[in-house]
Parts: sequence; C-alpha cells; structure tokens
Amino acid sequence: MVVKVYGPAYASPKRVIACLIEKGIEFEVVDIDILKGENTSPQYLNLQPFGVVPVIQDGDYTLYESRAIMRYYAEKYKSQGTQLLGNTVEERGQVEQWLEVEAQNFHAPVYDLVTQVLFGPLLGITRDETRLRQDEEKLVRVFDVYEERLRTSKYLAGDSFSLADLSHLAFGHYLMSSLKKEYLIRDRKHVSAWWDDISNRPSWKKVVQLYPYPV
Amino acid sequence: MVVKVYGPAYASPKRVIACLIEKGIEFEVVDIDILKGENTSPQYLNLQPFGVVPVIQDGDYTLYESRAIMRYYAEKYKSQGTQLLGNTVEERGQVEQWLEVEAQNFHAPVYDLVTQVLFGPLLGITRDETRLRQDEEKLVRVFDVYEERLRTSKYLAGDSFSLADLSHLAFGHYLMSSLKKEYLIRDRKHVSAWWDDISNRPSWKKVVQLYPYPV
Repeated sequence: MVVKVYGPAYASPKRVIACLIEKGIEFEVVDIDILKGENTSPQYLNLQPFGVVPVIQDGDYTLYESRAIMRYYAEKYKSQGTQLLGNTVEERGQVEQWLEVEAQNFHAPVYDLVTQVLFGPLLGITRDETRLRQDEEKLVRVFDVYEERLRTSKYLAGDSFSLADLSHLAFGHYLMSSLKKEYLIRDRKHVSAWWDDISNRPSWKKVVQLYPYPV
Repeated sequence: MVVKVYGPAYASPKRVIACLIEKGIEFEVVDIDILKGENTSPQYLNLQPFGVVPVIQDGDYTLYESRAIMRYYAEKYKSQGTQLLGNTVEERGQVEQWLEVEAQNFHAPVYDLVTQVLFGPLLGITRDETRLRQDEEKLVRVFDVYEERLRTSKYLAGDSFSLADLSHLAFGHYLMSSLKKEYLIRDRKHVSAWWDDISNRPSWKKVVQLYPYPV
C-alpha cells in the first residue's frame, strides 16, 4: 500500500517524508495550498479536524500529527531502512526525550518566527516584536543546551541518527535560509557540525529538492 | 529499583506519577521548589539542563520530559498494570496522535494561562491580555474537536483509556480549579463525561491527594 502524504510543500509534512525515505517506504503526495485555504475545506477537516498538515492515508488507516506518524512508521517497519527509535527501550527513551525537547523547546519559537516573519505578510498577521525577541532568546537557550550535549554525543539521543535529529530538519531549514538566522547554528561548533551531518543525509536533500518550500 | 521523581508538586511531574501508579511501579519523590529557584541549581541543571520538572532517576538511568518518561514506562512494563499505549502498532499510532494533539494544541494555551494568571503574580510576570484571549480561543477550538471525537469514541484514542487521556489530567485540573474555567469542559456534554471518567480514576485521585498543587 502506497502511503499518501498531504501537504508536501510545508515544513511538518517534510519531516514525515524524510522519515518515509529513511525507512524505504513508498509514498505519494497530495498538494494542499494553505494560502488558498484548502486546509479548511470540509473534506480536509474531515481528515484533519484542526486544519493543519500533514495527514497520511495508508489504505483505510488515517493518521495526523507529524511526530506521531514518524513514530508509527519507525515502529511498524523497525527492521527496514534506518533504525530511528534506538535498539532498546532505554535507547528509545532517550530518543523520545530529545524528540519532546524538539517539540516543546525548539519547535514553538521557530514556528512562531516562521508564522510571523514569513507567512505573516501573506496572511495579514501583524508582527509582535516582543514575541519575536522572546523566540530568539528561547532558541539561544535551546542551542546552548544542544552544544553541551553534542560536545559528548554525536547525535542528540546518542551515537546514532534518530527521529530526534530528523525532526529538527524541517524547521531548522528555515533558520538556515529564509529567516537568515544561520548564526544561531554556525556560532556553535558542535551544533554546526551536527547540522551539516543531518542536513546532508540523502533523504533530506531529496525532500528539499522534490518539494521546494513555499517561502 | 524504585523510581525517583523530581518535582511532585507541579503539574507535569503529576502526569508521570499518575502513569507510574497506573502501571503499578514503585516510586519515591524529591521535592523541587521552583518558587525558591531550586530548579536552577547547578546540581539540578546537571540532571535537567532546561531547569524544568520532572526528571526521573531509575538506578543510573536518567530521563526527562514527562511524555517521554510516560512512554518509556508504558512500553517497558507493557504487560503490567493498565495498558496505556494500545494493543497494536495501529492503536499506538492513534494514542501517539492524540498525545501530540495534547502536547501541541491543548498544553501550550493552558500552560500559558497557568504561567501568567497563577504563577505570574508570584514570579513578577506582567499579564498579556491579548495572549490570554488567544489562549482561551485556542482551547475553545481544541475542546470543540474533542467534543466531536468523544461523541463516537469513549476515549480520545479509541475504546480504552490511554496516555493520550491521562496526559490531560495535570493541566486540565487547573482549568477545573484555580483558573475557574470549568465551563470549557462542562459546556460540552461528551468532554464533560470524559473528564469525569478520567479524573475519577483512583490513580489520579491519589496523585491529587498525595501532592497538592502549589497554586
């Protein structure tokens, strides 16, 4: 069964697609144009009631929330492609810890920067400068912790690339490109080396090449 | 080995403790007084570099981020106590989806309300009325989706209580008590019945009785 992924132009679906490529799972994409409001059509809301991307359909199985989708495929096809959840329950614990750090500490400020600075002008959202400053302060704190961690560990959750690293690519790419905040990564030796490592994986290069970012 | 849980007075560690009780896992607690800044001591930061609670120690295994800790124990002791991750990979996918909805859509606005309204006066944080209004709007949207879901499903992820439901208890309690926003839950028939069901579980009643909320 070919997995259908909705919204490949946007960042969160790219996280799912990179995971599918790492696992060697066949997929096809369905474009959703958020700028045209296609994410709020009754048909789409029937699939994803919050009106956000991605959602996947795999036969009659439907799932949303990018990190839930990645966990599902990484577990279902454990022995196929790259092992992304560690080899033991303890290793998976570490992957889950850093995946939560990504979701709770890294994602929120970058998402807000992307929404305000990049999509804001297109969607008529007024910039909140105080919040933009807070976002940057939060990211500085996050990357300071990552720098310490990556000083003694090749990847966030340990010696191997995992979902915890992969999950940073989709929005990390915005920091390195349209948001012009590459200094947050480049000013930190170990974070910088880690970024080069993970963003040069064939899976991620393929995602960026196949599905250009809209902004 | 007895699991050591740091910060039982606060909401996120309560989520972990409820999970340990559901699984029948022995634990002990270590108090951390955030209002006195104990979470920013060098010893604590060594365990949890972001200075937040909880963190657990289990022999020489250390883990933080409450949802990662819950997943770890729910998986490690799969066949002991309440099954909290579903019985199949597909069921776990649904649990993960709703656990992400909790983390991404429910948690952020309630956490902001708790921080601004309840802890704000104690920590000298100025209230941002626009943001408080946005938080409430987000919660209305979330509970509207839950109401639809719970119309046809007893629990968020399906027929059985899971981590997805459990994860709402710690901050949901604030809506029902100090924040005085119980109408968000009580105005919705199915959400209201769901809340009564999950908050009356012996595990949760024990958590609230043993570890009173600080505000």
